[in-house]
Amino acid sequence: MTIVTLDRDQISTLLGEQRDAYDALKARDLALDLTRGKPGADQLDLSNALLSLPGSDDYRAADGTDTRNYGGLDGLPELRAIFSDLLGIPVDQLLAQGNSSLTLMHDVIVWALLHGFDDSPRPWSAEETVKFVCPVPGYDRHFALLESLGIEMVTVDMLSDGPDVDAVAALIGSDPSFKGLWLVPTYANPTGVTTTPEVAARLMALPAAAPDFRVFWDNAYAVHHLTETETKSAAALELAAAGGHPDRVVFFASTSKITFAGSGVAFFGSSPANVAWFRRHLSFASIGPDKVNQLRHVRFFGDADGVRAHMHEHTELLAPKFAAVEQILTDRLASYGVARWSTPTGGYFVDLDVVDGTAARVVELAKGAGIALTPAGSAFPYKQDPNDRNIRIAPTFASMDDLRTAMEGVATCVLLAAAEKALA
Amino acid sequence: MTIVTLDRDQISTLLGEQRDAYDALKARDLALDLTRGKPGADQLDLSNALLSLPGSDDYRAADGTDTRNYGGLDGLPELRAIFSDLLGIPVDQLLAQGNSSLTLMHDVIVWALLHGFDDSPRPWSAEETVKFVCPVPGYDRHFALLESLGIEMVTVDMLSDGPDVDAVAALIGSDPSFKGLWLVPTYANPTGVTTTPEVAARLMALPAAAPDFRVFWDNAYAVHHLTETETKSAAALELAAAGGHPDRVVFFASTSKITFAGSGVAFFGSSPANVAWFRRHLSFASIGPDKVNQLRHVRFFGDADGVRAHMHEHTELLAPKFAAVEQILTDRLASYGVARWSTPTGGYFVDLDVVDGTAARVVELAKGAGIALTPAGSAFPYKQDPNDRNIRIAPTFASMDDLRTAMEGVATCVLLAAAEKALA
Repeated sequence: MTIVTLDRDQISTLLGEQRDAYDALKARDLALDLTRGKPGADQLDLSNALLSLPGSDDYRAADGTDTRNYGGLDGLPELRAIFSDLLGIPVDQLLAQGNSSLTLMHDVIVWALLHGFDDSPRPWSAEETVKFVCPVPGYDRHFALLESLGIEMVTVDMLSDGPDVDAVAALIGSDPSFKGLWLVPTYANPTGVTTTPEVAARLMALPAAAPDFRVFWDNAYAVHHLTETETKSAAALELAAAGGHPDRVVFFASTSKITFAGSGVAFFGSSPANVAWFRRHLSFASIGPDKVNQLRHVRFFGDADGVRAHMHEHTELLAPKFAAVEQILTDRLASYGVARWSTPTGGYFVDLDVVDGTAARVVELAKGAGIALTPAGSAFPYKQDPNDRNIRIAPTFASMDDLRTAMEGVATCVLLAAAEKALA
Repeated sequence: MTIVTLDRDQISTLLGEQRDAYDALKARDLALDLTRGKPGADQLDLSNALLSLPGSDDYRAADGTDTRNYGGLDGLPELRAIFSDLLGIPVDQLLAQGNSSLTLMHDVIVWALLHGFDDSPRPWSAEETVKFVCPVPGYDRHFALLESLGIEMVTVDMLSDGPDVDAVAALIGSDPSFKGLWLVPTYANPTGVTTTPEVAARLMALPAAAPDFRVFWDNAYAVHHLTETETKSAAALELAAAGGHPDRVVFFASTSKITFAGSGVAFFGSSPANVAWFRRHLSFASIGPDKVNQLRHVRFFGDADGVRAHMHEHTELLAPKFAAVEQILTDRLASYGVARWSTPTGGYFVDLDVVDGTAARVVELAKGAGIALTPAGSAFPYKQDPNDRNIRIAPTFASMDDLRTAMEGVATCVLLAAAEKALA
């Protein structure tokens, strides 16, 4: 029994059942929120030792630097060493900066617009048009940043092994206005897809009409596993060099979903040439990052294995939440064939596709019942989902009880919208 | 007896004496540094309580916000309230951000270039030329930032009561390419001058050809007094509104020289329209500042009087250093008429003018004796001091003994260079 095999009467019955369920849901006066990929309070508690670190009179870096004073534009070497190990980037090519990788992405694009990269024919802002390739569904803040800067976005599909490289090739091979491509390579937002080394290798080797084409490699979830399998990210910098484009990758990561969101440390990594370019422009905008906070993180983690052990504690808190989402979606929706969803092995999201043309309706219904979902279309440039089918579910922040309640409600809304559509 | 009243023989004698003194200085193999306005370790020690704040399980803001999680783009209201009091800016118009006011200045100029302000005819980068008025001597990083962005700098003199407003008026009144003016209004870098309310009022009322002309009001030393007199900064926002240009001021400050340099909190303040503009562009680049660090500062200060008491401790450490500089310069140089210097009542610098055409030579001589001074010309756009006379002395970072040794050495170099010049 799927919704396409039901006759009109059966669908009418389904519609009536789901309307009743929806009315009951509304009567509960819920106020639940599955919109953003925020850590839960229990996850934040894992890092509470940071609240009193580095501790009184502990302010010297390994090389004797007084972290309380100005300077050290590249960030604390010992913190960079820890993440060099975890992220697979040589420590000299990995800078530890402020509290937000989004800020670093902003800065890189802004400097590309105003100055260009060293291999740019001219500043990007002097080009008639600047375009980015955007695998979809993707991260809304990536798209909003480009839109705010007047950069055109063209979509390709995110497939099960990474972005559709043939589609990327067709775009960037002949049109020099394509200057960049967004990619969350590991446990992507929101699909959960990890780009395979094979796909990454092809992407890095593709001929591009623009000499300064860059892959914005936002490895936000590099160590955010949901199972015992610690999926390894493709070695972007090495693959780029092997593919003949050593400067193609600009790499971003942060501890926002490792320690405290907003009070962590963000990282920029790239080729030596790009790092020199980044540092040159950064030197006019900053005297150095918050080294005390970097020392605080060094004391907290100890070493790369300390980060791994810490992430394991996150996994133990998050895996049951993702399992609950999977179970409720399966129990309530699988038999009707009205939805497909991801079963991620890492990251922060479940990607839910509903019946075409009903995503906005599902989000509207959920809102009416006090369940806030990310607005339909958010995972697409200009917030335009061409099929009106994609909904991003963020299970991490809610308590387990709230999450279950909310997902039961979402399932009701998905079914109700599907039945409405079938009878329309 | 001044160098101009000495005859050639007397100058030759002086030259010989100072050459001997210089040789003796070189023989000491010094390695001293008066280049940057960095707090001394004893000053940083005053804030060591921060190293274990806010303390375990203390992470809730006054309104219940979990500071460990994402959000809160404007910064923590209670920290903004403390600095609203100190800086004289309504709390709604004062945002608490990251660790660097220089970064905020960079962001404002970058957004002005890419987007323009709301009252800009077009983005600044679409103008044929963008110029800034730069009172000199001034802050080298202000000038370096503009130079990196291709903004032309035109100088006016910094007088004893603030920038030469007549000169500013002549520039900005008819040339719409003048979009901004830098000003450190209180205890200016490096002159120590505080811009009076009268001068500030005139500056805010001046007709400007550019509708979007802005005064970049970098109040870096608002509470950094060196005496019991707590000089009050001119009320920039009020004066701008009274002068008919409510959106003229963009205000910057930070705790870099209050708590830890590089691990503090920076502030942006302006009119409601400018704050909305800033927040709009910021929202694409950040999910929020480091709120835990802001809470840490709230716990440390308590309230505005806590900041005042803390600054008084800084004064007690710094006043003797500035007194030592004053004493050595007076003892060694006053009678020769070879130099003029500031006697600041606040801030971080002593501004030293030597015989015209000898500043670079003095810095070179000092370097030869192991005493690092800020390169001559640093306080001018493009590092060009038209008179080659200005040297910025930064007395805060060195220990008292090192400072005395270095200043005795500097005095020797000033005299030696003056005698060389007189005999050339």
